[in-house]
Amino acid sequence: MKNFITFEGCEGVGKSTQIRYLKEYLQKTNQPALFTREPGGNEVGEKIREILLKEKMSALCEAHLFAAARIEHINTVILRALNQGMLVICDRYIDSSFAYQGFARGLGLEKVMQINEFAVNNCMPQYTVFLDMNPLNSWRKQKGKVIDDRMEGESGEFHLKVYDGFKRLSQAYADRYIVIEPKPLKEETSQSIIDALRKRGIIK
Amino acid sequence: MKNFITFEGCEGVGKSTQIRYLKEYLQKTNQPALFTREPGGNEVGEKIREILLKEKMSALCEAHLFAAARIEHINTVILRALNQGMLVICDRYIDSSFAYQGFARGLGLEKVMQINEFAVNNCMPQYTVFLDMNPLNSWRKQKGKVIDDRMEGESGEFHLKVYDGFKRLSQAYADRYIVIEPKPLKEETSQSIIDALRKRGIIK
Repeated sequence: MKNFITFEGCEGVGKSTQIRYLKEYLQKTNQPALFTREPGGNEVGEKIREILLKEKMSALCEAHLFAAARIEHINTVILRALNQGMLVICDRYIDSSFAYQGFARGLGLEKVMQINEFAVNNCMPQYTVFLDMNPLNSWRKQKGKVIDDRMEGESGEFHLKVYDGFKRLSQAYADRYIVIEPKPLKEETSQSIIDALRKRGIIK
Repeated sequence: MKNFITFEGCEGVGKSTQIRYLKEYLQKTNQPALFTREPGGNEVGEKIREILLKEKMSALCEAHLFAAARIEHINTVILRALNQGMLVICDRYIDSSFAYQGFARGLGLEKVMQINEFAVNNCMPQYTVFLDMNPLNSWRKQKGKVIDDRMEGESGEFHLKVYDGFKRLSQAYADRYIVIEPKPLKEETSQSIIDALRKRGIIK
């Protein structure tokens, strides 16, 4: 879907910071864009998000809840903005389901694809910015970080599986993926992202 | 799945009453059974149930939420009891998804099947007791009934589509369906259900 950009990556690798930097750049240069995050978007999405963050459940249940929230997010937020010609930047999307439920929780890519087929049918991202950083490396820098939800409370091994999942996805969907290796300075990383999106004609 | 019985039918046709009568009969005759309802079963299920009853959403989102709750219900309640050799009686199950989301909301049977494939894969009911009554006929008897959730608040036309959906399912799955036409006396209806289950060797 033209003008639909997603950001993906492991926990704690600076995704939110980079999205904020991009937002600031677009504001400064007068380029309107809608920033949204998944799961969420509308009331149903936020309530599903709450269940996902707080309750224990099977990988299959988790995959369906993400798909349910995604459908509402697509219909009430993403497609509306895209149809008005807006650029949409989404923090996490279908690739997180592939990496988390498909790879890390072992559900398999095919099952997650089948579950999400009707949801993302006509709404795949044009490009996916993947912050390619081993989560264990980034965690070492943030000792004492408070773990505040169920996903972040998972083991290092789990997050390595997520990382491995994203790496595989970046190879399988090489045309869609924009792989960015975070640099020591956040501003440098941000510049790489902006350059990559400019080169592809997504932003000016 | 042996010993797994579901009850289906439209709103207000006496499903809960009939399930209660069956429960009383089994207690009186010392036949242990687990009675459960859908959506629900465990904490995740109850929270999903809350969203389903209170929030507005698309048919696709609804189908995924029911599937998510169903998975947890199957894994934490139904399969455990069945594996211990218990008889399990469930108030609504997959056929409600077929009738409500598939037929009445127009999602189509195939989509609902695909969404539920992994959920009910190994846990289809052995028999489904369908209370075959046009919901509009039963409603005429209960004027002034308080409408207390989103499903019950739907139009008569919607509930007629649900009914039509159940009728089609009862033909498509004739071997699994036990079709019971409610009689003027609830006790008579109950006797028909008990007779039908006894004849099939499910209860004594």
